[in-house]
Amino acid sequence: MRVDKRAIGVFDSGIGGLTAMRELAAFLPHEDIVYFGDTGRVHYGTRSRETIVKYARQDARFLCSFDLKLLLIACGTASYAALETLQQELPIPVFGVVEGASRRAAELTRVGRVAVLATPATISGHVFGNFLNTISPGITVLEKACPLFVPIVENGRFQPEDPLVRILTEEYLAPVREAGVDTIILGCTHYPLLAEAISRCVPGAALVNSGAEAAKTVAESLRKTCLAAPETHVGTRRYFVSDSVAQFRQNAGMYLRHPLDGSVEWVDIEKYE
Amino acid sequence: MRVDKRAIGVFDSGIGGLTAMRELAAFLPHEDIVYFGDTGRVHYGTRSRETIVKYARQDARFLCSFDLKLLLIACGTASYAALETLQQELPIPVFGVVEGASRRAAELTRVGRVAVLATPATISGHVFGNFLNTISPGITVLEKACPLFVPIVENGRFQPEDPLVRILTEEYLAPVREAGVDTIILGCTHYPLLAEAISRCVPGAALVNSGAEAAKTVAESLRKTCLAAPETHVGTRRYFVSDSVAQFRQNAGMYLRHPLDGSVEWVDIEKYE
Repeated sequence: MRVDKRAIGVFDSGIGGLTAMRELAAFLPHEDIVYFGDTGRVHYGTRSRETIVKYARQDARFLCSFDLKLLLIACGTASYAALETLQQELPIPVFGVVEGASRRAAELTRVGRVAVLATPATISGHVFGNFLNTISPGITVLEKACPLFVPIVENGRFQPEDPLVRILTEEYLAPVREAGVDTIILGCTHYPLLAEAISRCVPGAALVNSGAEAAKTVAESLRKTCLAAPETHVGTRRYFVSDSVAQFRQNAGMYLRHPLDGSVEWVDIEKYE
Repeated sequence: MRVDKRAIGVFDSGIGGLTAMRELAAFLPHEDIVYFGDTGRVHYGTRSRETIVKYARQDARFLCSFDLKLLLIACGTASYAALETLQQELPIPVFGVVEGASRRAAELTRVGRVAVLATPATISGHVFGNFLNTISPGITVLEKACPLFVPIVENGRFQPEDPLVRILTEEYLAPVREAGVDTIILGCTHYPLLAEAISRCVPGAALVNSGAEAAKTVAESLRKTCLAAPETHVGTRRYFVSDSVAQFRQNAGMYLRHPLDGSVEWVDIEKYE
C-alpha cells in the first residue's frame, strides 16, 4: 500500500476553524497537519468576495510553503468565496466545507426542508443552497445569515442560558422553526459551539457540522487515493496565526475541546502574494 | 494671515471614524479632508498592539501619499496603540482621540468619577486612565471594555429599545452606574451611535464624544498655528477604503448622519509599508 508523508494544510479566517481541525485530527491521527488562522484579518464573514479571495490566496500560498498533499478550507466564508479559485490555481486537491455538509443534509432530511446558517458573505453567495439544489432538486432550502454569531462566540458567549444567546438564536432561528425545517447546516466553523442553543430553538432538528463533514470527506479522499500517512507515524500539529500567538493559545481550547497540541508561530501573511 | 491649502488626513480601522469625520467637517468647512477606513482589516479593537501599530503605520503611509498638513487618528484603538509611534515617525502633527476627551471629562465631572468605555485593546492599554490621572490625579477612573458594542453597531443595532442593545448596555454599564460616575467617555468612534442607549442606563451622566473632542482640538490647533485653509475655499472630502466601496457607500450615512459627500475609492493598503 502506498503512503504519503506530506502534510495536510488547513486554514480559516481565524480561530473557528479549530472545530474542523479537531475532527480532522481525530479522524487522521497519523497525519501531519499545519493550521493557519488569519487572526490578524478576521472576520471574513462581513467582507466582500474580492477581499476574501485575496486573503484566501495569501493563506493558501503561505501553507503551500510547506510540502502539502491536500488543503482544507476550514471556513464557510472562504469556502464560498475562494474554493473554485484555489482548486484552479493549486496543484493539490482543495476541499471546502460546503459539499460534505450539503450531502449529509440531503441524506438526513425526511421532510425535504433544510436550513443553512452562515455568515452574511456566505449566504449572499447561496453556495450551500445551490449545491443542495444540484444534488437534490426537491429540497427546499432556507438560507439565514447570522451576522452576530461569530462575534458572540469569539467573546465566549455561547451558553444556551445566556440572555444574549437566547435573544439572537431566537431571532435568527424563529423563521427556521416556523418553516418546519428538520435539518440545519452549521455553515460556519464557529457555530458548533452554539449547537446546544440552536437545538433548543428548533427542537428535534438534526444539526450538520460542516467542519466535521469536511473532515470526513478529506479522510475518505486520502483513503481512496492512497495518500494516507503510514500508520506507524504519530501525526504532528503545527499552528500559525497572523495576530497574537498568546491570544490564540489562550482561546484555542474552547474550539478544540482539548488543550492545544502543537507549536504556535506568528506569520506575516501580507508577504505571501 | 497665513493660510495652508494642504489637506487633513483622517483614518480609522473602518467606518466608525466617520462620526469624528462628521464633526471635523462641520468645524472646518474650508478644509480638504482625506479619510481612509481600513474596512478590509476592521476591527482593530480585538487585535494585539503589534498588529494595530503595523496597520496604523500602513494607514498613515497611504494618507501621507497626499500632501497633508495634519493627521487625525479617528479611532480609539489606533490612538491607544499607535499615536506615539506616528508622532515620532511623521513630519506633520498627529492627533488621536484620547487627549481632548480626557481633558473635557476632567472639566465636566463634579463628583470626580469618570468612566471610559472602549474596545478591549484600548482598555488593556489604560491610555485614557493614565492621561486622566496625569492631568487630574484626584479623579477616579473606571475603565470598561465593551467588546460587543462595535459588532452590534456595525449590524445597525443601536436603538435603545432593541432587546439586544438593552442587555449589553445594562451588562457593561451597571458597574458604571453603581460606581456613581457622572461623566462617561465614549472612547471608540462607533459608540456615539449608542449614546441614547447608554444615557438611559446611566441617567444624568454627561457623555463625552471622543471623536468630536478630537475634531475640536484639531480645529483649535489649525487656528493657533495659522495652518487653516483660506476661508474662500470650499473644502472637499475624499474617502478611501480597503474593502468594498459599495458597502461603505451604503453604510456611511448611518455614521455621518447625512449622505456621503465625496468620492469613495478602493486602496490596496497592504502595499503601503
